[in-house]
Amino acid sequence: MTDTLIDRRDLAFQLYEVLDTEALTTRERFHEHNRDTFDAVIETADRIARDKFATHNSAADKDEPRFVNGAVEMLAEVKEAFDAYSEAGFIAGRYDYELGGMQLPESVMAACNGFFTAANPGTAGYPFLTTAAANLIRVFGNEQQQATFLPHMLSGRFTGTMALTEPHAGSSLADIRTSATPTDDGHYLIKGAKIYISGGEQSLTENIVHMVLAKIKGAPAGVKGISLFIVPKFRVDEAGEATERNGVSLAGLIHKLGYRGTTSTALSFGDDAPCHGYLVGEPHQGLKYMFQMMNEARIGVGFGAAAIGYRGYMHSLEYAKERLQGRKPSEKNPEAPQVPIIEHADVRRMLLAQKAYSEGGLALCLYGARLMDDQHTHPDEQKRLEAGKLLDLLTPVIKAWPSEYGPKANDLAIQVYGGAGYTREYPVEQCWRDNRLNPIHEGTNGIQALDLLGRKIWQDQSHGLQLLMQQMQVDLEAATTERCQQWALSLSETLQQAVKVTQSLGKSLMSENPDKVLANAACYLHLFGHIIVAWMWLRQANAAEQALASAGADDERNFYQGKLQAAQYFFHWELPTVAQDLVLLKNQDDTCLNMKAEWF
Amino acid sequence: MTDTLIDRRDLAFQLYEVLDTEALTTRERFHEHNRDTFDAVIETADRIARDKFATHNSAADKDEPRFVNGAVEMLAEVKEAFDAYSEAGFIAGRYDYELGGMQLPESVMAACNGFFTAANPGTAGYPFLTTAAANLIRVFGNEQQQATFLPHMLSGRFTGTMALTEPHAGSSLADIRTSATPTDDGHYLIKGAKIYISGGEQSLTENIVHMVLAKIKGAPAGVKGISLFIVPKFRVDEAGEATERNGVSLAGLIHKLGYRGTTSTALSFGDDAPCHGYLVGEPHQGLKYMFQMMNEARIGVGFGAAAIGYRGYMHSLEYAKERLQGRKPSEKNPEAPQVPIIEHADVRRMLLAQKAYSEGGLALCLYGARLMDDQHTHPDEQKRLEAGKLLDLLTPVIKAWPSEYGPKANDLAIQVYGGAGYTREYPVEQCWRDNRLNPIHEGTNGIQALDLLGRKIWQDQSHGLQLLMQQMQVDLEAATTERCQQWALSLSETLQQAVKVTQSLGKSLMSENPDKVLANAACYLHLFGHIIVAWMWLRQANAAEQALASAGADDERNFYQGKLQAAQYFFHWELPTVAQDLVLLKNQDDTCLNMKAEWF
Repeated sequence: MTDTLIDRRDLAFQLYEVLDTEALTTRERFHEHNRDTFDAVIETADRIARDKFATHNSAADKDEPRFVNGAVEMLAEVKEAFDAYSEAGFIAGRYDYELGGMQLPESVMAACNGFFTAANPGTAGYPFLTTAAANLIRVFGNEQQQATFLPHMLSGRFTGTMALTEPHAGSSLADIRTSATPTDDGHYLIKGAKIYISGGEQSLTENIVHMVLAKIKGAPAGVKGISLFIVPKFRVDEAGEATERNGVSLAGLIHKLGYRGTTSTALSFGDDAPCHGYLVGEPHQGLKYMFQMMNEARIGVGFGAAAIGYRGYMHSLEYAKERLQGRKPSEKNPEAPQVPIIEHADVRRMLLAQKAYSEGGLALCLYGARLMDDQHTHPDEQKRLEAGKLLDLLTPVIKAWPSEYGPKANDLAIQVYGGAGYTREYPVEQCWRDNRLNPIHEGTNGIQALDLLGRKIWQDQSHGLQLLMQQMQVDLEAATTERCQQWALSLSETLQQAVKVTQSLGKSLMSENPDKVLANAACYLHLFGHIIVAWMWLRQANAAEQALASAGADDERNFYQGKLQAAQYFFHWELPTVAQDLVLLKNQDDTCLNMKAEWF
Repeated sequence: MTDTLIDRRDLAFQLYEVLDTEALTTRERFHEHNRDTFDAVIETADRIARDKFATHNSAADKDEPRFVNGAVEMLAEVKEAFDAYSEAGFIAGRYDYELGGMQLPESVMAACNGFFTAANPGTAGYPFLTTAAANLIRVFGNEQQQATFLPHMLSGRFTGTMALTEPHAGSSLADIRTSATPTDDGHYLIKGAKIYISGGEQSLTENIVHMVLAKIKGAPAGVKGISLFIVPKFRVDEAGEATERNGVSLAGLIHKLGYRGTTSTALSFGDDAPCHGYLVGEPHQGLKYMFQMMNEARIGVGFGAAAIGYRGYMHSLEYAKERLQGRKPSEKNPEAPQVPIIEHADVRRMLLAQKAYSEGGLALCLYGARLMDDQHTHPDEQKRLEAGKLLDLLTPVIKAWPSEYGPKANDLAIQVYGGAGYTREYPVEQCWRDNRLNPIHEGTNGIQALDLLGRKIWQDQSHGLQLLMQQMQVDLEAATTERCQQWALSLSETLQQAVKVTQSLGKSLMSENPDKVLANAACYLHLFGHIIVAWMWLRQANAAEQALASAGADDERNFYQGKLQAAQYFFHWELPTVAQDLVLLKNQDDTCLNMKAEWF
């Protein structure tokens, strides 16, 4: 079993040759960093992920957390891994030095987290949720809330969760019923039930900080009446020391197909005992605040999906190089030795597709992380604004594309292994099961599609879209070799058609029933996503061609040739599949819209 | 949880309105049957499948067979179900009256078996393998072998297996090492190891009859040196009564992702005790014989994949009708009641796709079963020959298409359920895991693609292909309504392009390196498969239009409208995806072929 989680050579290429992450060190926030410190922290992440996370990935899947007397029992290795992650400073990695952080760029932290998800998505879930919840308190919490909770979350004494979903409402947050009643003591009394709360109970830390959406009595209907509350498992004094148990309790564990190491919980608030909640920011602004966390989480989901896809690719690549079976069609001698299956063209197809999906997904997510860095730290205010707009536009793609194609990669990994891949003795079936969560949580991919076509594209007079096209233009023009120019041409032509169809959809949205225009949003997401990832492959191809021209060592030449071949795969085999989306969108195909429930 | 396994109305439509299965009753072999007897046996299958199979589908998945002291322990319900299946006469269902059979057409038996797989693929595996193994002995075994084994296999006293795969050879049967040494007593001594043998050990019956591929000492190299042997777990006297334990033993159980109810075994032959094997037919002809069983098994795999896809569709359809969540985009009042999720266009898209895949797969497999009937029982010898050729050509498609699109349907079923679908409390995740086996076993889909493009298309001067086009022409011409004519036109145009590309590939195959031409066989299989299934949808649409014209009852009208809308889905959303295959094949795209192992 390979211990490569994410190929370090590839990561270095993406960070330094495609994205110029090193340039970030000229910014004030990162000026104590340099490429060596980035690489050192990546090296540490890779090592801890291999030594502490990968080691119990299968065990935590087979021996999942148990609900015993209202508490959770889990493998001791999960806590060891969580503690190693915290102690190495990763929870606080991107935070200010004064908060105990390392002031690392999002790009570098995202890369680090890729190793942990690739190694063990279940265990990685706990610190990831914690850092996202902490960020919510850092940005929207008041000083006291920050002082009480932040240091303990960032040090790994407390974990965090996001508690949105309710049994009867699912994705429809407008319909949540959890209520918050103000008291004279300043806190609120929370009452209600939440479901699918990841990490909602665990046996890792002394406290858990739930970020809970609830409606204050008398609030407006729908999403405009949602407020955000901090609800700790144990109430705490101002220093964050536990005082007494708060009225939030574990109603049950949900048993999942995969991602079994992360508890998925049903929580009840205020059922057996009063449940204190502390309002974050202003009343009724909760969804807006939560969206910051959700957007971060969505990018994290995309990255995780790409990383699990990547891990399966690494496994199946190793297997394909080692496993001897059969001969090429042209070999007529049945006594010729069997060949490694990587020699079969169809196996190479399945590996190339995985490479295109995994490395393309990684490129997309690192690009997103870089936009977060630019949004927060670019010296030019205009560029900061633009990066934010671009990121906003791309968030549904960064969430959905890898979570569609990462599982596809894992499916192909199983197929490369053949019968062995279907057994639980090999690791790829777990990758496939784990990754299946990603198109569902943090907003299903169907919801991402509605977000993209119903909102993000048009936001701000489509300024995000214009910025995107400008960015793409830079890379289209940077294509100088013959093959890169061909690919740039394909991309540019597809883009033009997509723009045309977008304009026509925009017109319809203004004049017609939105139900009709949005009926095929899934096609639009696929179209848009494939264009973006084709662009990511063009960027990689441009960089590879440039490097290849001066590369000497065989290893280096092979690496760049591989990048170019994967780019070719994406342009020959993947990008053209959007032709179908273009037709359906252009025709505003009404097959699904007009289907009636009683016809099924 | 719905108890609909396969919609009986749909099945009746496919059997009687599309395929005219009733016409079979005019043939001598079936002349004691009529539609009532067919329906009665289908009713019995549906009932036993619901009462005895579906009831422990989840339990057998959660509590899989265990290896205890060299034997297998499994849930008692599995044996109850197996016995109910045998006692109802299904193992012998298609066999002669004189063998205790019901002389049922393959079409009807296939339909019956669909219910069992939909209900519980793991338990259904045992009788299915038994009937296929029995058929091998019936056709190729000598009289004594038939007398000794057949009655007990057909009555359910013995089960059967097919033992082909070996650990070091996998799909490459040319490389098997299991040896057979002749003795003076007429039997052979078998020595070797097999892996992934489904049903290789169980606690259901008193004996197991393994159909084993082995090489007689001194046999030619490669597939031309493979012979077929009967290897019973217990040696038997001529009446089939057990005498002593034979030297075949269970080396271990393989733990799988799904299909957990069917044991997957590693078997060793002749390790601890002499293992007697009885040669079937002529030496070195084993692969040819086994192919009969494999072809049957391949059609069975396709049908099973379609049935599991169908079952997931039934589940998610029910859920989508009951689950309330969210509102349509046009509904601006947040206090309007939540709607059943089937009202969301994207959910309808996922249900329509499932309908198109499941019912299309069912149509394809029933068509294949009908070809088996025509091959064996058509009164006109010419038609019998033609049916055999068509079936031969279509076998890789019947195996591969449903095993590609059945799992896709299950993936969509999970997505319709959202978070609930990812939990083990709902049934669709098991469908998805179970179905993942089907693209792998009985020849991976990659091997099916090579079989199609490397062999079947060209066989017999492409006579099969010509027959196929004649058959399709009949249905193209039968399209009389405007929409059916449009769909017929799309199909006909796609077909013409496919023929052109086939001719050009044929020329290359004769003159060039086959490695190059076969490199994109997977595309060819996809192209060919989608054309065939589009044809299946045209046939259904033609029948639905005709029936709709005179249908009175709302239920009936809804049923036919649904068929037509699913056909439209297939023609608008699915068939056009082959444009990409056509381009890659036309260009003989060399991206995968030219990728080098060291570039990965």
